[in-house]
Amino acid sequence: MKHTISILVENKFGVLARIAGLFSARGFNITSLAVGETEDPAVSRMTIVVKGDDKTLEQIKKQLNKLIDTIKVVDFKEGKFIDRELVLVKVPVFAENRKEVLEAIKTFEAKVANVGSKSISVEMAANQDGMIKALMELLRPFGLLEVVRTGRIAMSVEDMDLKSGGKPEVNE
Amino acid sequence: MKHTISILVENKFGVLARIAGLFSARGFNITSLAVGETEDPAVSRMTIVVKGDDKTLEQIKKQLNKLIDTIKVVDFKEGKFIDRELVLVKVPVFAENRKEVLEAIKTFEAKVANVGSKSISVEMAANQDGMIKALMELLRPFGLLEVVRTGRIAMSVEDMDLKSGGKPEVNE
Repeated sequence: MKHTISILVENKFGVLARIAGLFSARGFNITSLAVGETEDPAVSRMTIVVKGDDKTLEQIKKQLNKLIDTIKVVDFKEGKFIDRELVLVKVPVFAENRKEVLEAIKTFEAKVANVGSKSISVEMAANQDGMIKALMELLRPFGLLEVVRTGRIAMSVEDMDLKSGGKPEVNE
Repeated sequence: MKHTISILVENKFGVLARIAGLFSARGFNITSLAVGETEDPAVSRMTIVVKGDDKTLEQIKKQLNKLIDTIKVVDFKEGKFIDRELVLVKVPVFAENRKEVLEAIKTFEAKVANVGSKSISVEMAANQDGMIKALMELLRPFGLLEVVRTGRIAMSVEDMDLKSGGKPEVNE
């Protein structure tokens, strides 16, 4: 089963290696990992997507909670959350396909991040693996020169029922 | 000095822990780390932002290149590149401040990711630490409930001189 786990840790030397080691020691493959700063410079947040059996994961979560640098562990399978991932994709362009590439980008409401004489770089943040996969499938026929992904980040939300993730309508 | 390093690795078990260990063994503090899939499911890309002296970093890069699972190492201080980071920020809202929060989000052309009865979650992808910091400074007075960041990703581009990162004008 796929799990999205958010770990709040003290921003200290070696913590990342220790946590990555915990997962690999148990044979868990890390699908993606994003580590970034938080509102507090002394604290970092790791968002890890892993596949593996639930029982072993429970053990890992216990071990994570025992680490002195761990502040909080959240397994997002349990709660209401939104998730996002950012992707940069570079595709080759030339006079004949430029319009078609730009149309494809527009379809996904992705952004043009850079325009070169021979390539266009696209950025898109999406709330599903599916959307990013779909963008890539659409761009693949043009040739994917480079794909860079951040890995998933996730955040708890209250009352997701009011508005679901993605593009809520907002009355301004 | 701050470096943004992109490492293409075989998507194998334990690689992440090994690479994180290389940096921490040399006393390098990892500011951010993003690990995601690439166009090839057998290959992952890690984007690491580190601070430390250039000489030690050269040694680490040599060690990275020696790892059997390393395909390619790029130090983006050397080349032309675009960089992006995605951030999710949750702020409390109530009748009196809702309009003001939405105005702040609009100023940055950030997106509303979720609207709850007591909070709004915002997403923004930006090409500079500065922009994300600025968004947070603008939202801080409302109270930052939660901040989740992906860490930086970076991608090489040819002829950045034609159009710079961020928001190029595109003739459609």
